[in-house]
Amino acid sequence: MAKLIGKAVIAQGGGPTAVINQTLVGAVLQARQCPWIEKIYGAQHGVKGIVDEDFLDLTAATTPNLLSVAQTPASALFSTRDKPDQEYCGRIFEVLKAHDVRHFFYIGGNDSADTCRIIHEQAKAAGSELRVLHIPKTIDNDLLVTDHCPGFGSAARFVSLAFAGINLDNLSLPGVYIGVVMGRNAGFLTAASTLARKYPDDGPHLVYVPEQPFETEQFLTDVSRAFSQYRRCIIAVSEGIVDGKGRPVITSLVTNAEKDAHGNVQLSGTGALGDALSDLVRNRLKIKRVRCDTFGYLQRSFLGCVSEVDAKEAFAVGGKAVQLSGLEEASGSVAIRRIGDYAVEYFLTPLETVARHTKSMPAEFLDGASSTVTDSFRRYALPLIGSLPEYERLSAPRVEKVLRRA
Amino acid sequence: MAKLIGKAVIAQGGGPTAVINQTLVGAVLQARQCPWIEKIYGAQHGVKGIVDEDFLDLTAATTPNLLSVAQTPASALFSTRDKPDQEYCGRIFEVLKAHDVRHFFYIGGNDSADTCRIIHEQAKAAGSELRVLHIPKTIDNDLLVTDHCPGFGSAARFVSLAFAGINLDNLSLPGVYIGVVMGRNAGFLTAASTLARKYPDDGPHLVYVPEQPFETEQFLTDVSRAFSQYRRCIIAVSEGIVDGKGRPVITSLVTNAEKDAHGNVQLSGTGALGDALSDLVRNRLKIKRVRCDTFGYLQRSFLGCVSEVDAKEAFAVGGKAVQLSGLEEASGSVAIRRIGDYAVEYFLTPLETVARHTKSMPAEFLDGASSTVTDSFRRYALPLIGSLPEYERLSAPRVEKVLRRA
Repeated sequence: MAKLIGKAVIAQGGGPTAVINQTLVGAVLQARQCPWIEKIYGAQHGVKGIVDEDFLDLTAATTPNLLSVAQTPASALFSTRDKPDQEYCGRIFEVLKAHDVRHFFYIGGNDSADTCRIIHEQAKAAGSELRVLHIPKTIDNDLLVTDHCPGFGSAARFVSLAFAGINLDNLSLPGVYIGVVMGRNAGFLTAASTLARKYPDDGPHLVYVPEQPFETEQFLTDVSRAFSQYRRCIIAVSEGIVDGKGRPVITSLVTNAEKDAHGNVQLSGTGALGDALSDLVRNRLKIKRVRCDTFGYLQRSFLGCVSEVDAKEAFAVGGKAVQLSGLEEASGSVAIRRIGDYAVEYFLTPLETVARHTKSMPAEFLDGASSTVTDSFRRYALPLIGSLPEYERLSAPRVEKVLRRA
Repeated sequence: MAKLIGKAVIAQGGGPTAVINQTLVGAVLQARQCPWIEKIYGAQHGVKGIVDEDFLDLTAATTPNLLSVAQTPASALFSTRDKPDQEYCGRIFEVLKAHDVRHFFYIGGNDSADTCRIIHEQAKAAGSELRVLHIPKTIDNDLLVTDHCPGFGSAARFVSLAFAGINLDNLSLPGVYIGVVMGRNAGFLTAASTLARKYPDDGPHLVYVPEQPFETEQFLTDVSRAFSQYRRCIIAVSEGIVDGKGRPVITSLVTNAEKDAHGNVQLSGTGALGDALSDLVRNRLKIKRVRCDTFGYLQRSFLGCVSEVDAKEAFAVGGKAVQLSGLEEASGSVAIRRIGDYAVEYFLTPLETVARHTKSMPAEFLDGASSTVTDSFRRYALPLIGSLPEYERLSAPRVEKVLRRA
């Protein structure tokens, strides 16, 4: 073990979440108690900060500051959308070597896992003992192997509370409501719109996710049917819905769509998809009151909307990564296994099993015929979003009419 | 007093809020203890429910149900956008008479106050003792006379927490962010975007409200200046911003804009304004990462985002209206007076002082030169939004560079 004593670097990549700092702080507090970690540095702006040697010495941060940071949404070390190639990873490896770093922890999604994979391969090829640990986070919940991803529970909580409120609002002033939820490849977060439903006629009544092709005519048929049944209709739509040919529905609507370094089209930060779907319902079904909101950045950063389960697990997964970094052959991605109902344990999975690819919702979570999700999804997701606030409809006897003019 | 013993009717009008049911339940619980109120009926769907004799007997609702309903966002009695004219009010008056109703309570904004005013005048003209009490609610905070409106504090809490999270998210991944906030005539809610700011460089850096004409070139100059200063820029914009000629900026962007029964253009439920402003910044300032969210219905109905001060006052104002209805010449609108720092008392103001017109933000709340709001606004609004969650930036020493290649 002695030869592994050295510095550690931790960084945060990709989109922020409400609990990504729980993971950071969980790792730092654990690292400060580990005999094999001399110091733990935080790289600012993810991998970019490593290349730029933009490090903070987190060994010297105060514990009260760290505990407050843990409660703070969005990446305290700042983030990056850089997706390192072999050459970029080579520079990262060089900097880590220059600072005598023996443990690298990268909190992120599948792209960050891929960065870890490349760096780890380069380290092995160079005969280095660098241990590379990927720590999962994503509101999309689309990482392979792990049962679920830290960050998802809190975002899912936001989406479920938003739709529960929208449902009550829409009961007050009925119409068609479309809520566009984040999710490029996986519909987990959009499906979470159903989690705070309580009464049988509560919305969302229809749920559209990237896992199932979006057909305009079927959509209009669904909305028309639901509107007849409930005299209102609430719809949850993933921003990443695709047509029968696998093309994002949004690309047919937005010109000059922006792409990031990963070649991904910008889906968030615009109301275009929702507005186009609203126009479709308004024009084709002749329904007058059609409203649409695009939840956008609120769902991943809203201050104070945190699932206590998610926060706890995000904190734990950070500490676990550091604990595992003391093992022989420690490189890998930390994953969550669900045991019992509801408890979890953590384990290490090889980096290549998590890198690059994403997970979709299993077929058993989707009820394609009625464009909604199943009870199986509810059982999976409900333990993750924390306790929900109480709400109730008014219950009182009707008064007999006197004038009876209607 | 004896001749005033009779039934009471309560209804909810206009847009729902997070605490409008606190007011309903505060009134009902008080009414059930008042010797001059035999029964209290709830009219479903506001004034429309009165005309249709669509009443629930709230005297027979259980207290546990009522207490749960109080915690539930959006109008438990459902709402309406109907704006009664003289003839419509005549029908309301007739139904109230037929059911021996002596007290009418209407929870709503300035349009609802105007309905109360007309019904009250008709009652007086007919020699009726009907007492008509308007109880204020609006997230826009734009009612005259009252210091502030129940419903505003919770919506302002939502907006301030949303922007606090957005600010942290934008620190992680910098760029320009535009958040479009509800507010047709008054900018109170948009100004609330600043209330959870903590560090000197926290956003929103720019705030645009309907009270000040929106000039495109000035907007671009502001954004360019803020972006140079902070290397990022967060902007809060009211959906109701108008140009130098008083025309809503959105009308120049949206074709076939929908209008309601009050002749108001639909401002919410579309991302058009935000997308147009984003395009402006992207194209004219050549800034690549520009994102926009339109907060839409989330800000008025989100389940569990309630200011405890707002909830308490909303409950109190309902009870106060019922208490005041026992007085001679009791018709009027219940208003809030701020006393001390911070406490309130309630009083009755004549219906015509609240009906129809709206209040704008006073000049002292606005810093037009730098397109933001003043500390005077913060002192006014901070006591209304409840306690805010803690958050903190990471504080740790920089590590000396070894390679110094940059």
